[in-house]
Amino acid sequence: MTIREEALHMHRVNKGKLETTSKVPVKNATDLSLAYSPGVAEPCKDIYDDKSKVYEYTMKGNTVAVVTDGTAVLGLGNIGPEAAMPVMEGKAVLFKSFAGVDAFPICLNTTDVDKIVETVKLLEPTFGGINLEDIAAPNCFAVEERLKKETNIPIFHDDQHGTAIVTAAGLVNALKMVGKSMSEIRVVANGAGAAGIAILKLLRNFGVRDIIMCDSKGAIYEGRPFGMNAIKKEMSEITNLDRKEGSLSDVIVNADVFIGVSVEGALTKEMISSMNADPIIFAMANPNPEIMPQEAKEAGAKVIGTGRSDFPNQVNNVLAFPGIFRGALDVRATHINEEMKKAAVHAIASLVNEDELSDDYVIPAPFDPRVAPAVAAAVARAAMETGVARRQVDPEEVAEKTRRLAIIGKE
Amino acid sequence: MTIREEALHMHRVNKGKLETTSKVPVKNATDLSLAYSPGVAEPCKDIYDDKSKVYEYTMKGNTVAVVTDGTAVLGLGNIGPEAAMPVMEGKAVLFKSFAGVDAFPICLNTTDVDKIVETVKLLEPTFGGINLEDIAAPNCFAVEERLKKETNIPIFHDDQHGTAIVTAAGLVNALKMVGKSMSEIRVVANGAGAAGIAILKLLRNFGVRDIIMCDSKGAIYEGRPFGMNAIKKEMSEITNLDRKEGSLSDVIVNADVFIGVSVEGALTKEMISSMNADPIIFAMANPNPEIMPQEAKEAGAKVIGTGRSDFPNQVNNVLAFPGIFRGALDVRATHINEEMKKAAVHAIASLVNEDELSDDYVIPAPFDPRVAPAVAAAVARAAMETGVARRQVDPEEVAEKTRRLAIIGKE
Repeated sequence: MTIREEALHMHRVNKGKLETTSKVPVKNATDLSLAYSPGVAEPCKDIYDDKSKVYEYTMKGNTVAVVTDGTAVLGLGNIGPEAAMPVMEGKAVLFKSFAGVDAFPICLNTTDVDKIVETVKLLEPTFGGINLEDIAAPNCFAVEERLKKETNIPIFHDDQHGTAIVTAAGLVNALKMVGKSMSEIRVVANGAGAAGIAILKLLRNFGVRDIIMCDSKGAIYEGRPFGMNAIKKEMSEITNLDRKEGSLSDVIVNADVFIGVSVEGALTKEMISSMNADPIIFAMANPNPEIMPQEAKEAGAKVIGTGRSDFPNQVNNVLAFPGIFRGALDVRATHINEEMKKAAVHAIASLVNEDELSDDYVIPAPFDPRVAPAVAAAVARAAMETGVARRQVDPEEVAEKTRRLAIIGKE
Repeated sequence: MTIREEALHMHRVNKGKLETTSKVPVKNATDLSLAYSPGVAEPCKDIYDDKSKVYEYTMKGNTVAVVTDGTAVLGLGNIGPEAAMPVMEGKAVLFKSFAGVDAFPICLNTTDVDKIVETVKLLEPTFGGINLEDIAAPNCFAVEERLKKETNIPIFHDDQHGTAIVTAAGLVNALKMVGKSMSEIRVVANGAGAAGIAILKLLRNFGVRDIIMCDSKGAIYEGRPFGMNAIKKEMSEITNLDRKEGSLSDVIVNADVFIGVSVEGALTKEMISSMNADPIIFAMANPNPEIMPQEAKEAGAKVIGTGRSDFPNQVNNVLAFPGIFRGALDVRATHINEEMKKAAVHAIASLVNEDELSDDYVIPAPFDPRVAPAVAAAVARAAMETGVARRQVDPEEVAEKTRRLAIIGKE
């Protein structure tokens, strides 16, 4: 069978990938009297008296909605909420498999920012957190910004921050390889979508000062008279401080790091040759990278990461989101803030030991069972330290719980 | 432990009662490439080309949202969406345990009809059906009516129709006991809430002509100058054709059947004594019935049913909703119509064999494993016969599937 046939077959025979399951037996009248009427009235009354007890007596505290409007699904684009279902179910499966988080797909029949925001707010009583997924830019920025202000649960647009966190972790380790520091490198990014913007914003928080962002029209600079929008304008004010103009091939000269979140073929060997010594390349276009790893190496790239599982250094969001939500949920965080993201970056990066670090191993493997527990513990600790935790926990217990609940890496 | 302590303990140690579980393994890169990227793109593309394939490749076709605004939860009233969570989770557990239906709680942070309707419509891509739960009258009527018109999936307000179906099934059998027919009986109901109205409407579809509905102010009649609202006005036009006035004790004289969906103590022995021979009493107030069964019997009641598990003839919605949704989902019904409800009534009633039928056994027991399969098959058949099925199935296969998926009645 081709992978297409195999994937269709697997989805068809299982009727999707996710189910809801009871955690308690309901086989007789006694079971029923506890799980349902009359016993169920007792937790209801206690939650009515103290709303925070919803975290004690219900699934809310372990449950994340995977919310999409179906406008930017994988590399398929705006395919609508029904066609997005397999991805959202798959994401929910990953949440459970990697970190024991109960997740549920919420595919919304609207692309209107106000309606998406309103709906998620109305769903807040049920969910302990919201993972926004595959919502196209620029709507994804407004949806996330508003929900962060207007709800009291963690909101996380994985396409932005998941990718940013894993890329930053890879960069932390790649810089060790080449002996450069965040503050001295020049980063050139190609692609001004959700992921690219989030990566550059996160790298700024790691001390990177010299950043140039390109879109299909070339370098973005303050006052560029064409092809701008609100978010590019915002980026133009905090990047490219020398207001360099020109194409990617013009501005990549003497760069140390290339971040690609654009399209196949966008990066050439010539461009890599024009970079500073020991170029670091993250070519994350899907399904095919901006340049193939072999070519990049031939052109002098020191480290190359892609989005693909069949090459080394895979930038896979699954390294981040399961542990991030595990940690955020376990401390009942109200937000996922910058410190929590940075803690996740360091947790991921630190799992590559100094003696294992190599050109082909700056990012842990997706199925490394140490990752989610380490990320969860680090995120929980950062949440408590920055005052967004509503509950104090021992980070080591968070890690241990993550190990216990995860399905990957077990028999 | 008291039942309160036991119920709180059970909810606390399990952190609620429901979880989401993967139906497919995700333990290594091969699994991941099928369940998630890149394989998942294949069902996405097929659904994009033909939206109906969402039923083939995703969980939608087996998944029901249990939707509430928390305004009429159990006997607790308007306790809000957070405090309603334990009930909605419990309902979801029952859906799975009795009929293998995946259900998920959706507790909405609004009591506004327009917002509830809008939200459920936006959620339609994810769910194969909507079970409305514990939404107070009169909003529940408007929410259900509008959603039936504005969506293409089954909408079912269980507090109305579940109760109505099980009550009608009990009445079908009780009338056999006393040798009376639907067309000749007088029914007096006490309580003009969602359940009472749905019961009387359903009984009219079974041929009952002589109905009087009472509220706390007495009999409802056309033109009553006090305590009316839109739904009572509607009921006044189709019941109490003689426009009888007075209290329950006035109008219950010479009635054959009492339907109580009101409060403890609303029915007295004297009232039962004033009814026709062989009175049939459904005293379904929660947690305590309008009259206790022993007292009702002493006053001459032939058959008495209540909502309680510790008395005979329990009117328990769990006899209806799991099988109804199982059948509706399996034929991909667009609606749950009157014929499907009537089919459910007959399926439930017919499981009490003629030779087992007695005063104390007119309704099957809640854990009778024959019920959900029989209801599912009957509902599927009725849906196909009335043209609301988008898929033709063998009803016996629906029953068999229900037996296979149910957890109750097994080791």
